Amino acid sequence: MSDRTTAELRVAVLGVGMMGADHVERITGRIKGARVAVVNDYLHDKAETIAAGIDGCRAISDPLAAIADPEVDAVLLATPGPTHEAQLIACIEHGKPVLCEKPLTTDVATSLDIVRREAQSGTPLIQVGFMRRFDHEYSQLKTAIDDGVFGRVLLAHCVHRNPAVPPSFDSSMIVKDSLVHEVDVTRFLFDEEITSVHIIKPSANPSAPAGLQDPQIAYFTTESGRHIDAEVFVTTGVAYEVRTEVVGEKGSAFIGLDVGMVRKYSTGAAVGDGRSRAGSWGGDITPSFTERFGQAYDTEIQRWVNAVRSGVNVDGPGAWDGYAAAAVCAAGVRSLDSGRPETVEMIDRADIHAVAASVSGV
Amino acid sequence: MSDRTTAELRVAVLGVGMMGADHVERITGRIKGARVAVVNDYLHDKAETIAAGIDGCRAISDPLAAIADPEVDAVLLATPGPTHEAQLIACIEHGKPVLCEKPLTTDVATSLDIVRREAQSGTPLIQVGFMRRFDHEYSQLKTAIDDGVFGRVLLAHCVHRNPAVPPSFDSSMIVKDSLVHEVDVTRFLFDEEITSVHIIKPSANPSAPAGLQDPQIAYFTTESGRHIDAEVFVTTGVAYEVRTEVVGEKGSAFIGLDVGMVRKYSTGAAVGDGRSRAGSWGGDITPSFTERFGQAYDTEIQRWVNAVRSGVNVDGPGAWDGYAAAAVCAAGVRSLDSGRPETVEMIDRADIHAVAASVSGV
Amino acid sequence: MSDRTTAELRVAVLGVGMMGADHVERITGRIKGARVAVVNDYLHDKAETIAAGIDGCRAISDPLAAIADPEVDAVLLATPGPTHEAQLIACIEHGKPVLCEKPLTTDVATSLDIVRREAQSGTPLIQVGFMRRFDHEYSQLKTAIDDGVFGRVLLAHCVHRNPAVPPSFDSSMIVKDSLVHEVDVTRFLFDEEITSVHIIKPSANPSAPAGLQDPQIAYFTTESGRHIDAEVFVTTGVAYEVRTEVVGEKGSAFIGLDVGMVRKYSTGAAVGDGRSRAGSWGGDITPSFTERFGQAYDTEIQRWVNAVRSGVNVDGPGAWDGYAAAAVCAAGVRSLDSGRPETVEMIDRADIHAVAASVSGV
Amino acid sequence: MSDRTTAELRVAVLGVGMMGADHVERITGRIKGARVAVVNDYLHDKAETIAAGIDGCRAISDPLAAIADPEVDAVLLATPGPTHEAQLIACIEHGKPVLCEKPLTTDVATSLDIVRREAQSGTPLIQVGFMRRFDHEYSQLKTAIDDGVFGRVLLAHCVHRNPAVPPSFDSSMIVKDSLVHEVDVTRFLFDEEITSVHIIKPSANPSAPAGLQDPQIAYFTTESGRHIDAEVFVTTGVAYEVRTEVVGEKGSAFIGLDVGMVRKYSTGAAVGDGRSRAGSWGGDITPSFTERFGQAYDTEIQRWVNAVRSGVNVDGPGAWDGYAAAAVCAAGVRSLDSGRPETVEMIDRADIHAVAASVSGV
Repeated sequence: MSDRTTAELRVAVLGVGMMGADHVERITGRIKGARVAVVNDYLHDKAETIAAGIDGCRAISDPLAAIADPEVDAVLLATPGPTHEAQLIACIEHGKPVLCEKPLTTDVATSLDIVRREAQSGTPLIQVGFMRRFDHEYSQLKTAIDDGVFGRVLLAHCVHRNPAVPPSFDSSMIVKDSLVHEVDVTRFLFDEEITSVHIIKPSANPSAPAGLQDPQIAYFTTESGRHIDAEVFVTTGVAYEVRTEVVGEKGSAFIGLDVGMVRKYSTGAAVGDGRSRAGSWGGDITPSFTERFGQAYDTEIQRWVNAVRSGVNVDGPGAWDGYAAAAVCAAGVRSLDSGRPETVEMIDRADIHAVAASVSGV
Repeated sequence: MSDRTTAELRVAVLGVGMMGADHVERITGRIKGARVAVVNDYLHDKAETIAAGIDGCRAISDPLAAIADPEVDAVLLATPGPTHEAQLIACIEHGKPVLCEKPLTTDVATSLDIVRREAQSGTPLIQVGFMRRFDHEYSQLKTAIDDGVFGRVLLAHCVHRNPAVPPSFDSSMIVKDSLVHEVDVTRFLFDEEITSVHIIKPSANPSAPAGLQDPQIAYFTTESGRHIDAEVFVTTGVAYEVRTEVVGEKGSAFIGLDVGMVRKYSTGAAVGDGRSRAGSWGGDITPSFTERFGQAYDTEIQRWVNAVRSGVNVDGPGAWDGYAAAAVCAAGVRSLDSGRPETVEMIDRADIHAVAASVSGV
Repeated sequence: MSDRTTAELRVAVLGVGMMGADHVERITGRIKGARVAVVNDYLHDKAETIAAGIDGCRAISDPLAAIADPEVDAVLLATPGPTHEAQLIACIEHGKPVLCEKPLTTDVATSLDIVRREAQSGTPLIQVGFMRRFDHEYSQLKTAIDDGVFGRVLLAHCVHRNPAVPPSFDSSMIVKDSLVHEVDVTRFLFDEEITSVHIIKPSANPSAPAGLQDPQIAYFTTESGRHIDAEVFVTTGVAYEVRTEVVGEKGSAFIGLDVGMVRKYSTGAAVGDGRSRAGSWGGDITPSFTERFGQAYDTEIQRWVNAVRSGVNVDGPGAWDGYAAAAVCAAGVRSLDSGRPETVEMIDRADIHAVAASVSGV
Repeated sequence: MSDRTTAELRVAVLGVGMMGADHVERITGRIKGARVAVVNDYLHDKAETIAAGIDGCRAISDPLAAIADPEVDAVLLATPGPTHEAQLIACIEHGKPVLCEKPLTTDVATSLDIVRREAQSGTPLIQVGFMRRFDHEYSQLKTAIDDGVFGRVLLAHCVHRNPAVPPSFDSSMIVKDSLVHEVDVTRFLFDEEITSVHIIKPSANPSAPAGLQDPQIAYFTTESGRHIDAEVFVTTGVAYEVRTEVVGEKGSAFIGLDVGMVRKYSTGAAVGDGRSRAGSWGGDITPSFTERFGQAYDTEIQRWVNAVRSGVNVDGPGAWDGYAAAAVCAAGVRSLDSGRPETVEMIDRADIHAVAASVSGV
């Protein structure tokens, strides 16, 4: 692919649900140096309809065939989690760079296997879609931490609220699908691993579906003893809110106020002699992650495309980050069951190549 | 009144409409070292009802008798403006300290006469109820200006919004009753006189009573060439909002954001797959000046009571400030008519005693 | 004391350290219907100096004599915690209403004994100085909760930060002296008891004194299963910050933003062609609890004075609230040691009179 | 150019100073469907250096040759204003779509001539670079106005602050270079023309270069009687601030708070017993227009590229808007001199074609 720097990157988008369709629109409309060459979905008609609307785009019904296609330079995986493992293995086998929406795979063992296979291949190929790392405010916070603005950071408080979830959502998905972002944010901001997780189960939201443990409170401890807490509440009924505060020895900072246009408006009738009336001030909250993190997704995909075209392939969280997140979430799911803090079980990063070598029998 | 420092100050409250009744409650419930000894109102029954509810309080139907009463140490004037002149003269004649709610009197000539009479009396007796000078944030702003935080301040922007006004309100009252506060704020913050006023008349609020020029925009120029603009809008329908921003050579500041409890709440139904929903954040705006400036009124009256008990009589804006405000507002009313900037006509402060001497024929 | 409604309440202030001296100034300068008749301090010279500056005020060197003094109507206890027990017993014996700054006493057993003795006396006499209940924003939050604005409240997040603590402060004092406010806030907002406490010990602030476990994270569970977390961090070096957020099934709210005057100022030199320069916006944080909760203290003391003068004696948290806070803090101190959640051990409120009866042998 | 929808648009960027260089980087790095095919600058070496860094890009020393070049599909004019007229005429003659950074031309007459020539050409070709129309918050405000959220909007308050300007900046440039943005914002938000302009000259910033009238306050009146005021202050020393507030019969709104990460930090040493310390909260202000309006520029250029590729050529303010802005600014410059309100002199938009016809002699 020596011509990548001049030619447009031909991307296959696998899975065109809410997330995948958003990426198709993004690449087609805003991302420099890339085009959607192939789309795939288990609903093939949907893929064909989308392909028909894009110049030079084909629908391919078999995801593995789409990956293998010689006119596909890179893959964007937005398929359901259970299909990731086989698709990622195919990407590695064909040497195709891939941006994989979370999760890497659906369990720790297969995630580690992917890490190992990529390491064996000798080339970084996999980026995981933890888009918050590309959000302006998270970047600003990370930079301030690294610049020592807060001295040693001791604590972080995270809030992650969704207005509602699909009926299929169960309590462990709150850990694996929502809390996982706070896991990655923690690892990103502090450049260290999470060593234990404790999930607390307050009395559940009466408005949540029966049986759903929502909200959940998670506490992470990191290698160096930092404490992070995270509220995850996915049936708030309100809108989409994400907030992080860090507290250090020299000060603190928070992001996610998300203040845009501020309105003032009446909320009552005039009373008394007509000189008194109730009013409110305020603004809107983003309705979902696509608006809240729209800029982050754009930046993420543009930088990924640039990285692939330049031969670097990855410019952001990689397979290891997907594996680590899976390991932390697995401990979280265990804690959801046990009610106790659970230790995160994961290999040492330095052992990847050793593991790779031993497993591969080389 | 040598015993004032130990005995409670016996205050006569003249006028028990919205403002006066608020002061009665304030003095009775929260002000240290004072009690309401006499109440007066042109609706005498109302005064009697209030007096009946307060230990040791009498209703007196004649305001001048109330002022002259030997068991009244000080007077709080909350009567309609047209009655102020005679009442203030009586206070001066009886040597009674008086806190006079704005306006000092209803025109410039009589205001100047009051200034002169007080000067002739040889004792400061009159404080004018420009309460904003006692508001925490205005105080903070004044201190920052005086400390040179902004270098030379060049500009100020003021906003003054009422939800509604009584039916009797006319266009000139917007100047004399509402804008007058911005006049005093300007004089307070910058310690200099306003030399010209220009009232601009934008197309009127369609929801305002017919014939009312609302909103109005006022521009002040000060002796040293500062420029101040003020939006006065008294039929906003929204609530009570007051805001001031100053801009200087080294920075700027604004007060009046008035942020209290911040709520987040749903403003829409779930859409799509249930993961998206409209929501808002925000808080309440104070419904009227009594809430917005409650702390300022408390501080104003407490400090006035303390000043009177200690023999100083005045601790805040005095008769001169009432006169200067009247002179600026008179220019404002002329500008409302002429559509042009109008020069403020007022004597030099140094001439008070000369004027006093010449007028009094001494 | 049938004349209390007209005569000024004669208050004995015991302890004139930072807090007590602040109360002396408050009662003398701003509280209606009360005066400081007696001051007491273990540093008697200090008490005498203060007394000398106040009309009709005496210094009495023995706190119990001060309580017993016939010219003392009510007592404000701002002495060190270890002396409270004997002083409260004296107040009960003399039937003197008392506002006791936290803690009620220094341990659970003596606190319960005080509750019992007050119950036996047949008259409420003791109010505990949890001033936050009188803060405008906490009041606003409590009202919104009670009005059902948030539906069922499921979670609360609290932050309590001090810039620094005296050298004598140890890890358990963070629980008993600082966290105790979050304990009372929780009980106040939700009208139910805390059943368990878990103190988490993150790696300590490198800038804190050696051996001080700071920050601490506390998790409370309430009778109905609500979850409250509280960050307590007393060596932040920054200023005094207190914040509470509640999260319910219909929305959330937070208080404590504490936005006053907002400034904009330069933080860098001009660069490039002179059209680019770094700047910042922001405001000040209150330096200590006396500024942050000045309004709350004023309201607390005014309402207490009014209550005592009207014969009600208590208008706020009482002895039971002091006992409950002690019981929760005791569990907190145990958890600080054990590293595990600890159950709060306290009697049922309905049993006070039974306990009182059995203990007293009546 | 029938192949535009598939082939990349070949853009000639004329002028590679701060603004032009920013656009080169933007088109090369982030804009979909376009590439910089030609660069030109009066400093030819600079153009060559830039061209050398971009695949398939040439430097052409004559701007008119660059416009005429057959391998140039569209032109981005970032040259100094005095050269615009000839360059725009060349674009019209060659039928090349052009995005022209403000000003359209340097005077009203030549601007009108450009409008006429474009009209005569029968094809819209010219877009003017008023980027604020593409800013998220301005868009949000425009949408709310059009949706009737505020009822009839009566007033707007604008603030435009630069930290510093190049030495060559004179008083009339504040009108033509800075205030012009508020002119366009007014016309954009309210869809009507400005009929008069009054520039007020407060006493100048002592820190500004001698002779520079800075700040300036401008008042616009619109056809329907709306009043808009604008502070323009270009030597604040602080950073880059732009803010707009609109006030209507049903409420108001403001944009430009620009809140990102909020920090809390110490601003003083501990005092007293160590429990009190000064601290501040706040965030950063954007240093210049490139950061403040980065998103707006990206959106503007992407939409322009899309419009040109689809054959529409213009998607934003056009030549008429450039002409109208010039007419308003000319009145502003006259007012700067006269000290009085000046009427905006411009033709009726309906007369463009008549004028075009008569002038062209058809």
